[in-house]
Amino acid sequence: MRQFVVLAHELSASASIGLGDLPGTGRLDLLCRCVTSALLVSHDVREDARIDLVIDGYVVRFDGGSVRRLNPDERSTAALIRDALAERSEAVGAIPATVSPGVSVRRGDLEGTLERLDGTLVELHAEGRPIAEEKPPADPVFVLSDHRDLTDAEAGLLSARADRRASLGPRALHADQAITVAHNYLDTDGFGRY
Amino acid sequence: MRQFVVLAHELSASASIGLGDLPGTGRLDLLCRCVTSALLVSHDVREDARIDLVIDGYVVRFDGGSVRRLNPDERSTAALIRDALAERSEAVGAIPATVSPGVSVRRGDLEGTLERLDGTLVELHAEGRPIAEEKPPADPVFVLSDHRDLTDAEAGLLSARADRRASLGPRALHADQAITVAHNYLDTDGFGRY
Repeated sequence: MRQFVVLAHELSASASIGLGDLPGTGRLDLLCRCVTSALLVSHDVREDARIDLVIDGYVVRFDGGSVRRLNPDERSTAALIRDALAERSEAVGAIPATVSPGVSVRRGDLEGTLERLDGTLVELHAEGRPIAEEKPPADPVFVLSDHRDLTDAEAGLLSARADRRASLGPRALHADQAITVAHNYLDTDGFGRY
Repeated sequence: MRQFVVLAHELSASASIGLGDLPGTGRLDLLCRCVTSALLVSHDVREDARIDLVIDGYVVRFDGGSVRRLNPDERSTAALIRDALAERSEAVGAIPATVSPGVSVRRGDLEGTLERLDGTLVELHAEGRPIAEEKPPADPVFVLSDHRDLTDAEAGLLSARADRRASLGPRALHADQAITVAHNYLDTDGFGRY
Protein backbone atom coordinates (compact mmCIF):
# COMPACT_ATOMS: atom_id res chain seq x y z
CA MET A 1 0.00 0.00 0.00
CA ARG A 2 1.21 3.49 -0.90
CA GLN A 3 -0.14 6.24 1.24
CA PHE A 4 0.00 9.99 0.86
CA VAL A 5 -1.03 12.62 3.38
CA VAL A 6 -1.47 16.22 2.25
CA LEU A 7 -1.87 19.03 4.76
CA ALA A 8 -4.14 21.89 3.73
CA HIS A 9 -3.36 25.14 5.50
CA GLU A 10 -5.82 27.56 3.98
CA LEU A 11 -9.00 25.62 3.35
CA SER A 12 -11.68 25.83 6.01
CA ALA A 13 -13.89 22.78 6.49
CA SER A 14 -16.87 25.11 6.48
CA ALA A 15 -15.80 27.06 3.39
CA SER A 16 -18.46 27.75 0.82
CA ILE A 17 -17.03 25.80 -2.09
CA GLY A 18 -18.07 27.05 -5.48
CA LEU A 19 -16.33 25.42 -8.40
CA GLY A 20 -15.53 28.58 -10.34
CA ASP A 21 -12.53 29.71 -8.29
CA LEU A 22 -10.67 26.76 -6.82
CA PRO A 23 -7.41 28.64 -6.13
CA GLY A 24 -9.38 31.26 -4.21
CA THR A 25 -11.03 28.56 -2.12
CA GLY A 26 -8.09 27.66 0.11
CA ARG A 27 -6.08 26.40 -2.86
CA LEU A 28 -8.51 23.61 -3.50
CA ASP A 29 -7.04 23.32 -7.01
CA LEU A 30 -3.83 22.01 -5.49
CA LEU A 31 -5.58 19.41 -3.36
CA CYS A 32 -7.44 18.15 -6.41
CA ARG A 33 -4.25 17.73 -8.38
CA CYS A 34 -2.80 15.76 -5.47
CA VAL A 35 -5.71 13.33 -5.57
CA THR A 36 -5.25 12.84 -9.31
CA SER A 37 -1.50 12.29 -8.97
CA ALA A 38 -1.95 9.85 -6.12
CA LEU A 39 -4.66 7.67 -7.64
CA LEU A 40 -4.81 7.99 -11.41
CA VAL A 41 -2.57 6.93 -14.24
CA SER A 42 -3.37 6.74 -17.93
CA HIS A 43 -6.81 5.13 -18.25
CA ASP A 44 -6.40 3.39 -14.93
CA VAL A 45 -6.57 3.73 -11.15
CA ARG A 46 -3.78 2.91 -8.74
CA GLU A 47 -5.67 0.44 -6.61
CA ASP A 48 -2.82 0.08 -4.10
CA ALA A 49 -2.76 3.77 -3.21
CA ARG A 50 -4.73 6.11 -1.04
CA ILE A 51 -4.53 9.74 -0.06
CA ASP A 52 -5.65 11.58 3.05
CA LEU A 53 -6.33 15.30 2.81
CA VAL A 54 -6.05 16.87 6.25
CA ILE A 55 -8.36 19.88 6.20
CA ASP A 56 -9.08 21.95 9.27
CA GLY A 57 -9.73 19.13 11.75
CA TYR A 58 -11.11 16.68 9.21
CA VAL A 59 -9.56 14.08 6.97
CA VAL A 60 -10.99 13.41 3.52
CA ARG A 61 -9.74 10.07 2.24
CA PHE A 62 -9.69 8.84 -1.36
CA ASP A 63 -8.97 5.12 -1.63
CA GLY A 64 -7.77 3.83 -4.98
CA GLY A 65 -9.03 0.35 -4.23
CA SER A 66 -12.66 1.38 -4.06
CA VAL A 67 -13.02 4.82 -5.63
CA ARG A 68 -15.40 5.21 -8.54
CA ARG A 69 -16.14 8.11 -10.83
CA LEU A 70 -12.82 9.82 -10.20
CA ASN A 71 -11.77 11.93 -13.16
CA PRO A 72 -8.42 13.66 -13.62
CA ASP A 73 -9.67 17.24 -13.89
CA GLU A 74 -9.62 19.59 -10.93
CA ARG A 75 -13.24 20.63 -11.01
CA SER A 76 -14.85 17.19 -10.75
CA THR A 77 -12.50 16.22 -7.92
CA ALA A 78 -13.30 19.50 -6.17
CA ALA A 79 -16.96 18.51 -6.24
CA LEU A 80 -16.11 15.24 -4.48
CA ILE A 81 -14.13 17.08 -1.78
CA ARG A 82 -16.95 19.60 -1.39
CA ASP A 83 -19.46 16.79 -0.94
CA ALA A 84 -17.22 15.04 1.59
CA LEU A 85 -16.83 18.18 3.69
CA ALA A 86 -20.57 18.74 3.53
CA GLU A 87 -21.04 15.36 5.21
CA ARG A 88 -18.49 15.96 7.96
CA SER A 89 -21.12 16.15 10.70
CA GLU A 90 -21.88 12.48 9.93
CA ALA A 91 -18.38 11.54 11.12
CA VAL A 92 -18.69 10.76 14.80
CA GLY A 93 -15.63 10.22 16.96
CA ALA A 94 -13.00 8.35 14.99
CA ILE A 95 -15.50 6.65 12.70
CA PRO A 96 -15.40 7.83 9.10
CA ALA A 97 -18.50 8.60 7.10
CA THR A 98 -18.50 7.20 3.58
CA VAL A 99 -19.60 9.86 1.14
CA SER A 100 -19.36 7.98 -2.13
CA PRO A 101 -17.49 4.80 -3.11
CA GLY A 102 -13.88 5.19 -1.99
CA VAL A 103 -14.38 8.67 -0.55
CA SER A 104 -14.83 9.19 3.19
CA VAL A 105 -14.51 11.89 5.81
CA ARG A 106 -13.56 11.62 9.45
CA ARG A 107 -12.45 13.87 12.25
CA GLY A 108 -8.69 14.09 12.54
CA ASP A 109 -5.45 15.98 12.33
CA LEU A 110 -1.89 15.17 11.33
CA GLU A 111 -1.03 13.46 14.62
CA GLY A 112 -4.06 11.23 14.57
CA THR A 113 -3.55 10.46 10.89
CA LEU A 114 0.04 9.36 11.43
CA GLU A 115 -1.02 7.16 14.34
CA ARG A 116 -3.56 5.37 12.16
CA LEU A 117 -1.22 4.68 9.27
CA ASP A 118 0.89 1.54 9.10
CA GLY A 119 4.00 1.73 7.00
CA THR A 120 7.37 3.38 6.60
CA LEU A 121 7.08 7.11 7.06
CA VAL A 122 9.22 8.97 4.54
CA GLU A 123 9.77 12.62 5.31
CA LEU A 124 10.37 14.56 2.11
CA HIS A 125 12.82 17.30 2.94
CA ALA A 126 15.13 19.52 0.90
CA GLU A 127 18.03 18.46 3.09
CA GLY A 128 17.27 14.75 2.99
CA ARG A 129 19.45 12.28 1.11
CA PRO A 130 18.57 11.74 -2.53
CA ILE A 131 15.71 9.27 -2.46
CA ALA A 132 17.36 7.07 -5.10
CA GLU A 133 20.16 6.21 -2.67
CA GLU A 134 17.88 3.74 -0.91
CA LYS A 135 15.49 1.14 -2.24
CA PRO A 136 11.81 1.83 -1.66
CA PRO A 137 10.12 0.45 1.45
CA ALA A 138 7.22 -1.95 0.97
CA ASP A 139 4.54 0.29 2.44
CA PRO A 140 5.62 3.89 2.25
CA VAL A 141 3.78 6.83 3.72
CA PHE A 142 4.62 10.27 2.32
CA VAL A 143 3.48 13.46 4.04
CA LEU A 144 3.29 16.63 1.99
CA SER A 145 2.24 20.19 2.54
CA ASP A 146 0.19 22.39 0.26
CA HIS A 147 1.73 25.63 -1.07
CA ARG A 148 2.61 26.67 2.48
CA ASP A 149 5.48 25.28 4.52
CA LEU A 150 4.71 22.89 7.32
CA THR A 151 4.13 24.68 10.60
CA ASP A 152 6.83 24.20 13.23
CA ALA A 153 4.54 21.85 15.12
CA GLU A 154 3.84 19.76 12.02
CA ALA A 155 7.52 19.66 11.04
CA GLY A 156 8.48 18.59 14.57
CA LEU A 157 5.86 15.87 14.65
CA LEU A 158 6.94 14.57 11.27
CA SER A 159 10.65 14.60 12.07
CA ALA A 160 10.05 12.77 15.33
CA ARG A 161 8.11 9.98 13.68
CA ALA A 162 9.82 9.66 10.31
CA ASP A 163 11.66 6.47 9.45
CA ARG A 164 13.55 8.12 6.59
CA ARG A 165 14.28 11.64 5.43
CA ALA A 166 14.70 11.90 1.69
CA SER A 167 14.86 14.52 -1.03
CA LEU A 168 13.31 14.14 -4.48
CA GLY A 169 15.69 16.49 -6.24
CA PRO A 170 17.25 19.93 -6.24
CA ARG A 171 14.04 21.81 -7.10
CA ALA A 172 11.18 22.26 -4.67
CA LEU A 173 8.19 20.69 -6.41
CA HIS A 174 4.48 21.21 -6.13
CA ALA A 175 2.89 18.63 -3.83
CA ASP A 176 1.21 16.83 -6.74
CA GLN A 177 4.47 16.75 -8.68
CA ALA A 178 6.20 15.26 -5.64
CA ILE A 179 3.53 12.55 -5.49
CA THR A 180 4.09 11.76 -9.17
CA VAL A 181 7.85 11.46 -8.67
CA ALA A 182 7.40 9.35 -5.55
CA HIS A 183 5.13 6.97 -7.47
CA ASN A 184 7.70 6.71 -10.24
CA TYR A 185 10.40 5.95 -7.68
CA LEU A 186 8.20 3.14 -6.35
CA ASP A 187 7.12 1.90 -9.80
CA THR A 188 10.72 1.53 -10.92
CA ASP A 189 12.16 0.02 -7.73
CA GLY A 190 14.09 3.19 -7.02
CA PHE A 191 14.43 4.57 -10.57
CA GLY A 192 15.97 1.35 -11.76
CA ARG A 193 14.50 -2.02 -12.60
CA TYR A 194 10.99 -2.68 -13.85
CA MET B 1 16.73 24.11 -22.95
CA ARG B 2 14.08 21.50 -22.18
CA GLN B 3 11.32 21.25 -24.70
CA PHE B 4 8.00 19.44 -24.59
CA VAL B 5 5.54 18.95 -27.42
CA VAL B 6 2.02 17.77 -26.62
CA LEU B 7 -0.32 16.64 -29.38
CA ALA B 8 -4.00 17.42 -28.87
CA HIS B 9 -6.30 15.10 -30.77
CA GLU B 10 -9.76 16.29 -29.77
CA LEU B 11 -9.54 20.04 -29.40
CA SER B 12 -10.58 22.09 -32.39
CA ALA B 13 -8.81 25.42 -32.90
CA SER B 14 -12.20 26.99 -33.47
CA ALA B 15 -13.86 25.40 -30.43
CA SER B 16 -15.98 27.64 -28.28
CA ILE B 17 -13.99 27.49 -25.06
CA GLY B 18 -15.98 28.10 -21.92
CA LEU B 19 -14.14 27.54 -18.70
CA GLY B 20 -16.81 25.51 -16.91
CA ASP B 21 -16.22 22.18 -18.65
CA LEU B 22 -12.58 21.79 -19.64
CA PRO B 23 -12.69 17.98 -20.06
CA GLY B 24 -15.66 18.38 -22.41
CA THR B 25 -13.74 20.91 -24.48
CA GLY B 26 -11.34 18.56 -26.25
CA ARG B 27 -9.71 17.58 -22.95
CA LEU B 28 -8.40 21.06 -22.41
CA ASP B 29 -7.92 20.16 -18.72
CA LEU B 30 -5.16 17.81 -19.72
CA LEU B 31 -3.35 20.38 -21.86
CA CYS B 32 -3.47 22.85 -18.97
CA ARG B 33 -1.91 20.37 -16.59
CA CYS B 34 0.85 19.75 -19.12
CA VAL B 35 1.68 23.47 -19.21
CA THR B 36 1.85 23.57 -15.42
CA SER B 37 4.05 20.48 -15.23
CA ALA B 38 6.37 21.77 -17.92
CA LEU B 39 6.89 25.28 -16.59
CA LEU B 40 6.06 25.57 -12.90
CA VAL B 41 7.65 24.30 -9.73
CA SER B 42 6.98 25.38 -6.18
CA HIS B 43 6.81 29.18 -6.16
CA ASP B 44 8.97 29.38 -9.27
CA VAL B 45 9.08 29.07 -13.04
CA ARG B 46 11.37 26.78 -15.01
CA GLU B 47 12.98 29.42 -17.17
CA ASP B 48 14.88 26.87 -19.25
CA ALA B 49 11.75 25.06 -20.41
CA ARG B 50 9.09 25.57 -23.01
CA ILE B 51 6.09 23.64 -24.23
CA ASP B 52 4.35 23.55 -27.59
CA LEU B 53 0.72 22.45 -27.72
CA VAL B 54 -0.10 21.21 -31.22
CA ILE B 55 -3.80 21.89 -31.70
CA ASP B 56 -5.58 21.34 -34.98
CA GLY B 57 -3.06 23.01 -37.29
CA TYR B 58 -1.83 25.56 -34.78
CA VAL B 59 0.89 25.55 -32.15
CA VAL B 60 0.41 27.39 -28.88
CA ARG B 61 3.76 27.91 -27.19
CA PHE B 62 4.40 28.72 -23.53
CA ASP B 63 7.98 29.81 -22.90
CA GLY B 64 9.23 29.60 -19.31
CA GLY B 65 11.85 32.25 -19.95
CA SER B 66 9.33 34.97 -20.67
CA VAL B 67 5.92 33.83 -19.43
CA ARG B 68 4.14 36.02 -16.88
CA ARG B 69 0.95 35.50 -14.91
CA LEU B 70 1.00 31.73 -15.26
CA ASN B 71 -0.76 30.05 -12.36
CA PRO B 72 -0.85 26.32 -11.64
CA ASP B 73 -4.61 25.81 -11.78
CA GLU B 74 -6.30 24.47 -14.90
CA ARG B 75 -8.85 27.20 -15.35
CA SER B 76 -6.49 30.18 -15.55
CA THR B 77 -4.22 28.32 -17.96
CA ALA B 78 -7.25 27.39 -20.05
CA ALA B 79 -8.04 31.09 -20.38
CA LEU B 80 -4.54 31.71 -21.76
CA ILE B 81 -4.93 28.89 -24.32
CA ARG B 82 -8.38 30.20 -25.26
CA ASP B 83 -6.96 33.67 -25.80
CA ALA B 84 -4.09 32.30 -27.88
CA LEU B 85 -6.42 30.34 -30.17
CA ALA B 86 -8.63 33.41 -30.51
CA GLU B 87 -5.63 35.25 -31.99
CA ARG B 88 -4.67 32.52 -34.41
CA SER B 89 -5.67 34.52 -37.47
CA GLU B 90 -2.87 36.93 -36.53
CA ALA B 91 -0.30 34.20 -37.18
CA VAL B 92 0.73 34.55 -40.81
CA GLY B 93 2.85 31.92 -42.52
CA ALA B 94 5.43 30.59 -40.09
CA ILE B 95 5.53 33.76 -38.01
CA PRO B 96 4.07 33.41 -34.52
CA ALA B 97 1.74 35.96 -33.00
CA THR B 98 2.55 36.88 -29.41
CA VAL B 99 -0.62 36.81 -27.35
CA SER B 100 0.73 37.72 -23.94
CA PRO B 101 4.26 37.61 -22.47
CA GLY B 102 5.67 34.16 -23.15
CA VAL B 103 2.56 32.88 -24.92
CA SER B 104 2.36 32.75 -28.71
CA VAL B 105 0.45 31.01 -31.45
CA ARG B 106 1.59 30.02 -34.93
CA ARG B 107 0.45 27.78 -37.72
CA GLY B 108 1.97 24.33 -37.55
CA ASP B 109 1.72 20.62 -37.07
CA LEU B 110 3.91 17.92 -35.58
CA GLU B 111 6.22 17.67 -38.57
CA GLY B 112 6.84 21.40 -38.75
CA THR B 113 7.28 21.59 -34.99
CA LEU B 114 9.92 18.87 -34.99
CA GLU B 115 11.77 20.61 -37.81
CA ARG B 116 11.93 23.83 -35.84
CA LEU B 117 13.21 22.30 -32.63
CA ASP B 118 16.92 21.90 -31.95
CA GLY B 119 17.89 19.21 -29.49
CA THR B 120 17.90 15.50 -28.82
CA LEU B 121 14.53 14.02 -29.59
CA VAL B 122 13.52 11.46 -26.97
CA GLU B 123 10.63 9.24 -27.94
CA LEU B 124 8.77 8.07 -24.86
CA HIS B 125 7.57 4.56 -25.58
CA ALA B 126 6.38 1.67 -23.44
CA GLU B 127 8.89 -0.57 -25.16
CA GLY B 128 11.82 1.81 -24.86
CA ARG B 129 14.76 1.17 -22.55
CA PRO B 130 14.35 2.48 -19.01
CA ILE B 131 15.28 6.14 -19.25
CA ALA B 132 17.62 5.89 -16.25
CA GLU B 133 19.93 3.63 -18.24
CA GLU B 134 21.33 6.64 -20.08
CA LYS B 135 22.37 10.04 -18.84
CA PRO B 136 20.20 12.95 -19.97
CA PRO B 137 21.07 14.82 -23.13
CA ALA B 138 21.82 18.52 -22.86
CA ASP B 139 18.84 19.77 -24.82
CA PRO B 140 16.10 17.16 -24.77
CA VAL B 141 12.86 17.32 -26.69
CA PHE B 142 10.02 15.11 -25.47
CA VAL B 143 6.91 14.50 -27.55
CA LEU B 144 3.74 13.39 -25.78
CA SER B 145 0.21 12.64 -26.74
CA ASP B 146 -2.96 13.63 -24.91
CA HIS B 147 -5.28 10.87 -23.67
CA ARG B 148 -5.37 9.33 -27.15
CA ASP B 149 -2.60 7.28 -28.68
CA LEU B 150 -0.48 8.83 -31.38
CA THR B 151 -1.89 8.27 -34.83
CA ASP B 152 0.07 5.90 -37.04
CA ALA B 153 1.37 8.86 -39.02
CA GLU B 154 2.52 10.68 -35.89
CA ALA B 155 4.11 7.56 -34.45
CA GLY B 156 5.94 6.92 -37.72
CA LEU B 157 7.20 10.48 -37.92
CA LEU B 158 8.40 10.39 -34.35
CA SER B 159 10.13 7.03 -34.67
CA ALA B 160 11.89 8.15 -37.82
CA ARG B 161 13.28 11.26 -36.22
CA ALA B 162 13.89 10.17 -32.64
CA ASP B 163 17.45 10.07 -31.33
CA ARG B 164 16.47 7.87 -28.40
CA ARG B 165 13.57 5.69 -27.41
CA ALA B 166 13.02 5.50 -23.68
CA SER B 167 10.43 4.36 -21.18
CA LEU B 168 9.64 6.17 -17.93
CA GLY B 169 8.37 3.14 -16.06
CA PRO B 170 6.04 0.17 -16.15
CA ARG B 171 2.83 2.20 -15.84
CA ALA B 172 1.46 4.35 -18.65
CA LEU B 173 1.29 7.85 -17.18
CA HIS B 174 -0.80 10.88 -17.98
CA ALA B 175 1.06 13.28 -20.24
CA ASP B 176 1.52 15.83 -17.45
CA GLN B 177 2.82 13.12 -15.10
CA ALA B 178 5.30 12.04 -17.78
CA ILE B 179 6.52 15.64 -18.05
CA THR B 180 7.00 15.80 -14.27
CA VAL B 181 9.01 12.56 -14.27
CA ALA B 182 11.08 13.69 -17.26
CA HIS B 183 11.93 16.93 -15.47
CA ASN B 184 12.95 14.98 -12.37
CA TYR B 185 15.16 12.76 -14.50
CA LEU B 186 16.84 15.88 -15.88
CA ASP B 187 17.00 17.69 -12.52
CA THR B 188 18.81 14.76 -10.92
CA ASP B 189 21.19 13.93 -13.77
CA GLY B 190 19.37 10.70 -14.48
CA PHE B 191 17.81 10.05 -11.05
CA GLY B 192 21.21 10.26 -9.41
CA ARG B 193 23.41 13.18 -8.49
CA TYR B 194 22.24 16.68 -7.68
